[in-house]
Amino acid sequence: MYLCLMPENLLSHIDFPHDLRKLQLAQLPQLATELRDFIIDVVSRSEGHLGASLGVVELTIALHYVFHTPDDLLVWDVGHQAYGHKILTGRRSVFHTNRQFGGISGFPKRSESVYDTFGVGHSSTAISAALGMAIASKLKGENRHHIAVVGDASIASGIAFEGLNHAGVTDANLLVVLNDNAIGIDPSVGALKNYLTAVKDGKNPKQNNIIKSLNFDYSGPIDGHDLSALIRELERLKNVPGPKFLHVITTKGKGMQLAEENQVKYHAPGKFDKATGEVIIKSEENLPPKFQDVFGLTLLDLARKNDKIIGITPAMPTGCSLKFMMDEFPERAIDVGIAEQHAVTLSAGMATQGMTVFCNIYSTFLQRAYDQVIHDVALQNLPVIFCLDRAGLVGEDGATHHGVFDIAYLRCIPNLIVYAPRTEADLRNILYTAQLGLDHPIAIRYPRGRGITADWQQPYQKIEIGKANGLKGGEKVAILSTGFIGNNVVKALATMENSSDFAHYDFGFVKPLDERMLHEIFRKFTKIITVEDGVIAGGFGTAILEFAAEKSYAAVVKCLGIDDEFIEHGTVDELQKLIGIDVKTLQHKFSTF
Amino acid sequence: MYLCLMPENLLSHIDFPHDLRKLQLAQLPQLATELRDFIIDVVSRSEGHLGASLGVVELTIALHYVFHTPDDLLVWDVGHQAYGHKILTGRRSVFHTNRQFGGISGFPKRSESVYDTFGVGHSSTAISAALGMAIASKLKGENRHHIAVVGDASIASGIAFEGLNHAGVTDANLLVVLNDNAIGIDPSVGALKNYLTAVKDGKNPKQNNIIKSLNFDYSGPIDGHDLSALIRELERLKNVPGPKFLHVITTKGKGMQLAEENQVKYHAPGKFDKATGEVIIKSEENLPPKFQDVFGLTLLDLARKNDKIIGITPAMPTGCSLKFMMDEFPERAIDVGIAEQHAVTLSAGMATQGMTVFCNIYSTFLQRAYDQVIHDVALQNLPVIFCLDRAGLVGEDGATHHGVFDIAYLRCIPNLIVYAPRTEADLRNILYTAQLGLDHPIAIRYPRGRGITADWQQPYQKIEIGKANGLKGGEKVAILSTGFIGNNVVKALATMENSSDFAHYDFGFVKPLDERMLHEIFRKFTKIITVEDGVIAGGFGTAILEFAAEKSYAAVVKCLGIDDEFIEHGTVDELQKLIGIDVKTLQHKFSTF
Repeated sequence: MYLCLMPENLLSHIDFPHDLRKLQLAQLPQLATELRDFIIDVVSRSEGHLGASLGVVELTIALHYVFHTPDDLLVWDVGHQAYGHKILTGRRSVFHTNRQFGGISGFPKRSESVYDTFGVGHSSTAISAALGMAIASKLKGENRHHIAVVGDASIASGIAFEGLNHAGVTDANLLVVLNDNAIGIDPSVGALKNYLTAVKDGKNPKQNNIIKSLNFDYSGPIDGHDLSALIRELERLKNVPGPKFLHVITTKGKGMQLAEENQVKYHAPGKFDKATGEVIIKSEENLPPKFQDVFGLTLLDLARKNDKIIGITPAMPTGCSLKFMMDEFPERAIDVGIAEQHAVTLSAGMATQGMTVFCNIYSTFLQRAYDQVIHDVALQNLPVIFCLDRAGLVGEDGATHHGVFDIAYLRCIPNLIVYAPRTEADLRNILYTAQLGLDHPIAIRYPRGRGITADWQQPYQKIEIGKANGLKGGEKVAILSTGFIGNNVVKALATMENSSDFAHYDFGFVKPLDERMLHEIFRKFTKIITVEDGVIAGGFGTAILEFAAEKSYAAVVKCLGIDDEFIEHGTVDELQKLIGIDVKTLQHKFSTF
Repeated sequence: MYLCLMPENLLSHIDFPHDLRKLQLAQLPQLATELRDFIIDVVSRSEGHLGASLGVVELTIALHYVFHTPDDLLVWDVGHQAYGHKILTGRRSVFHTNRQFGGISGFPKRSESVYDTFGVGHSSTAISAALGMAIASKLKGENRHHIAVVGDASIASGIAFEGLNHAGVTDANLLVVLNDNAIGIDPSVGALKNYLTAVKDGKNPKQNNIIKSLNFDYSGPIDGHDLSALIRELERLKNVPGPKFLHVITTKGKGMQLAEENQVKYHAPGKFDKATGEVIIKSEENLPPKFQDVFGLTLLDLARKNDKIIGITPAMPTGCSLKFMMDEFPERAIDVGIAEQHAVTLSAGMATQGMTVFCNIYSTFLQRAYDQVIHDVALQNLPVIFCLDRAGLVGEDGATHHGVFDIAYLRCIPNLIVYAPRTEADLRNILYTAQLGLDHPIAIRYPRGRGITADWQQPYQKIEIGKANGLKGGEKVAILSTGFIGNNVVKALATMENSSDFAHYDFGFVKPLDERMLHEIFRKFTKIITVEDGVIAGGFGTAILEFAAEKSYAAVVKCLGIDDEFIEHGTVDELQKLIGIDVKTLQHKFSTF
């Protein structure tokens, strides 16, 4: 066994799990150290999700050591924790391309590797997916193991419970591994989390076991950094029939002191010094603010003056900056955990009692609560204020996370106002306007990251609902944009030679449309271009087409946005180029229209 | 107290709960009998949901007797069981208009009564809504009680768990009443149901309590037909702070022998003889089949020949007719309970292993699994076959249940095929075609109720994906319809004098569109009408507008469908007239275009 001769360098000889399985048990702790160092080294330079993968280094090794992947089917929930898995399954040499345009995905992805049995990104799907695989294997007469690795924040989400509830009445060969580190991106919340903590602390009688009540064979809790214990228990569970559940205790950020001590910060710290762990801070002087902070700081300011304001986030208090309000008004700013459905209906319930509820959900995650938006909010016309963070292209998180469907799926809902601010001031003012009281619910979609205006904290101005803004006059072509991407249009027109040909209108309101302005536009122009950072099918441009058809206008309308395909990962700039909504491509498209 | 003088007639003197609260405890059983008789009498003639409301007669009386509704806020989950509530809260005299056009809604509805604190229809929202109310009351310093009444089928759904998980870490004055009758529309399923049954049977040690583990004050189980016990326990719970949970055992259909014995049939039995309970059977000879049975019988037939076929339903085996396959292939046809999210991701997991999964979900309920359709199925391009029952207008169930958003919210999803059969043969043949193997997932949307072809069981024919059909030639105007509503167009054109002016094309495929056919149409016609039974915004007509814009065609296109508003309840015929897509209105619109 040549590997035994080179103990100083185990990882470099492991391309696939069958290499790993040649190692002796006693060598695995060294491999864990090497794998951890490898992750730290690469992520320190190329960025990405750090803490979660550090926390499951031993678990990852143990799973691939005990189970015969890829014949046994391993599903990682969410996938932030799957870097070790990727490195051990054929992708060590390309791991430095993680999350980069053309590189490997930051999440498990079926098209990338046979070891990635199920694409993930959104939380809490692993139990359902693995159960589906297990039922299929049984029907096909195949003797495989099926393992879902789920975090404690993730398992509290509705779909995870639905999966457990179903699995418990099957005889499927399913192992659910609970990776319990008491934190998702922010610290876990909820009654189930408290229960799990009590179990960990030995304060809960073993016989009172939620998981056992759901008819799983429960074992644990065990130390998720003890390779021997993990392997021993996994080997035992291989021979336990039916649905089984292993409760594993891990530490997020394990093995890197700062990451263990600052788990929220080191979830995805950006570049850092791998020797010290210190995050490399870029100068932020004079930069425009992040839209997230405009939301968070403005809401805090408004909440100080309006005691009816409530803030709700499903598990993203740091990411969406609701934490500012949570710190000052903990009773009125609530993290409900990964529970988008509940977040929306809870907001609706509060709204029936006259509260002014800001429900902040990432655009892509609002898909989880689509029915609640329709059935509990819009149908009852309750004036809930949805703040859709990370709308449009999100960049490196890729296809699972782009918020590009929201305009299409929200625009068809009666009673709902849909607004996309172009600037920080627009966002600030619509938040102000919304809490003054609206007759309808509203969805406010804005992007991840920085805006365009450093000096954004100007006096509040009320926004007229449904009013579009003419940004620039022009003679031949009208360009209608919605939201932040409109700034690309502004930049494009600023440096075009024939700029005077083009008028530019900012339609913050996708719904209701400013029909007065549209009549003016269609009377003046026979050539119109729409620009959005969402899907074209059913999107903003389509709304303009519907208006034109209804009013029998005959202009030529060209809709720019995202074609009918999923968009991969890369920087936002790279992806805008790919799609053709970057400044330069817009100039070309405008000129040749 | 005049009420005491007229014991033979209590109900007729109770207009509102404050009248009820004047009664003495000993009078309540008589009131229960009268209320039950009243429900049976009216529902026997005017149809509606019977069994659920019969099961909670005592609970309804007890809740309104103990709590000071409407100051105390009572939320009924789903609402099938709320007839007694409606009758006791101001609507006895109009109860005979239940579910009729212009009459009261079959579900609690905020706009109908201050006693209807939250509009319901879709399951499992009550805990979240009532918790939101309770948190709001606390912030406002109001001393109210908040009660959510949830069935045992409903509480197993993801959002209900999310609500419990959050409530357990609050000090909200929330009482969750579990109305445990072991059945939803079909018998309840899942591990939680088995657990609850064990609790009922005294087989589960009290200390092992899922609900207590979630930090609720648990009491019960108690007999939900024992008014004294109910009232005693509710009075006690009024003084218990924080989240509390009362487990109540009831019998669906209670008090009507046939309804107790045939709980599925008497969920909503149609007209029946109130003396005997016998359902009044209409002659079904020579009628076309229900689309549901076309689905169920065809799938069974296909499953006999293709052992890769699996059928999945979230709690609607009878409603969608998957029961035919469940009876013959119980291993391959699965009711997963009210768990649409899980149903979709489970299907995706099965599809990764090469199974041919028919996932049947009512159109309006697929809204619950929108993210799973995008993220777990379409993004991975897994060929799951979604069968969207009850697409379009559903009639008497009304605004909460119309399947009118599906085209709009599905059309924007890459990789997904969207098909709407016009006839039973189309549905039969697309099911056949889909199980032969597709390169993409597909959503097949079809209506509730009967089709148009009695003799539907013809030999299978493979359908060409993306192909539209010319149904009728014409000279001046092209009418493009999708799905079942196309039969209204056929009927309209059959009796118009200037019928030869109109060509008619059936676009079963909303996506991909038959572009070859569309080029032909747009080259020949300058006037085009689209017809669909869904929302116009983002719908099928809009897809045609997008095509025309992209290809720079200049035809005048008129889109007929549902305007930007929610549609209430009534017969499908009445609602089609309201919307203007009935045969006569279509003729008028065609003629005047």
